[in-house]
Amino acid sequence: MRILGISGSLRRDSYNTKLLREAGRLLPPGAELVEFDGLKAVAPYDADDEASPVPPRGVFELRAAIAEADAILIATPEYNHSIPGVLKNAIDWASRPKAEAALKNKPVAVIGTSAGMFGAVWAQAETRKALAGAGARVIDRELPVASADEQFHPLDGRLVDEDLQTELGGILHELVAEVQPALQRAS
Amino acid sequence: MRILGISGSLRRDSYNTKLLREAGRLLPPGAELVEFDGLKAVAPYDADDEASPVPPRGVFELRAAIAEADAILIATPEYNHSIPGVLKNAIDWASRPKAEAALKNKPVAVIGTSAGMFGAVWAQAETRKALAGAGARVIDRELPVASADEQFHPLDGRLVDEDLQTELGGILHELVAEVQPALQRAS
Repeated sequence: MRILGISGSLRRDSYNTKLLREAGRLLPPGAELVEFDGLKAVAPYDADDEASPVPPRGVFELRAAIAEADAILIATPEYNHSIPGVLKNAIDWASRPKAEAALKNKPVAVIGTSAGMFGAVWAQAETRKALAGAGARVIDRELPVASADEQFHPLDGRLVDEDLQTELGGILHELVAEVQPALQRAS
Repeated sequence: MRILGISGSLRRDSYNTKLLREAGRLLPPGAELVEFDGLKAVAPYDADDEASPVPPRGVFELRAAIAEADAILIATPEYNHSIPGVLKNAIDWASRPKAEAALKNKPVAVIGTSAGMFGAVWAQAETRKALAGAGARVIDRELPVASADEQFHPLDGRLVDEDLQTELGGILHELVAEVQPALQRAS
């Protein structure tokens, strides 16, 4: 089973990318996390470009990576109390065209971390809302990881807090469990 | 007085761009609307690029246009129940660096139209929330224009519904009234 990990932060040393990697270590046997590294290349969404026979820069790669994955795991920071524009732009492209959207019926879970006290909880909520609007099967849980700079072990990158590890493991369990019915519907 | 108009839709025949132009016609004497046409050129926000001595593609132009305007008027469509990624990405850049952000203390009003029944009301709410997070002085009103394809006169592009014209005029009045105190604080 292939889980596509998308970090909403493009920063090289992003805490959300660290959180995705920790999720990769906590996945049950048989499931693997593959990181999507093409977010920065995705063109700005323009409805006029949708009709173009050649998809705009980065859009084909984004849609193909989502289509090839059994499920998606998004880790998002919070910018200005909401979802990063970069991440929302990718959701906008992956939601079109509506009938054959890459996100349609795709199981997705959302987690997130931020330097502040609230762990990107608003960004996670808005991401879930947008994904539901795009027709994804959204796991109705969140993992707000506050004080990002204190949460990851400097040597191995593991989450220091075992309760957070357990919580994240539970979300991943639900995500993986959601894949089987989705595969059955597709067959 | 210079109002910078930003359409959250990049589409050439965008209804939100039409709505901005109608706002330009309803502005009080002495105020003019200037359309920002650089949204598509703005690079994806990457915190690593913030430190670069050369600002990423389109970011200097965006910040300068906001800085030179006395107020901002945003007209936004709704994508997947929320703000377009392209528009949010611009807000993310214009909110950084925090202390000297272009949006800080800038008077901003948000309006919007969509083809559906709700007139982009969720997108407008999320845009106001993000702008407030960026430190802008956000006018606490919205203009949800539903059924966008029926609202604009095919010949002159005017809003057909006079009540909507009046409502929009009221929002512009509040925006213009907000500029004077902002100018006084700046002096």
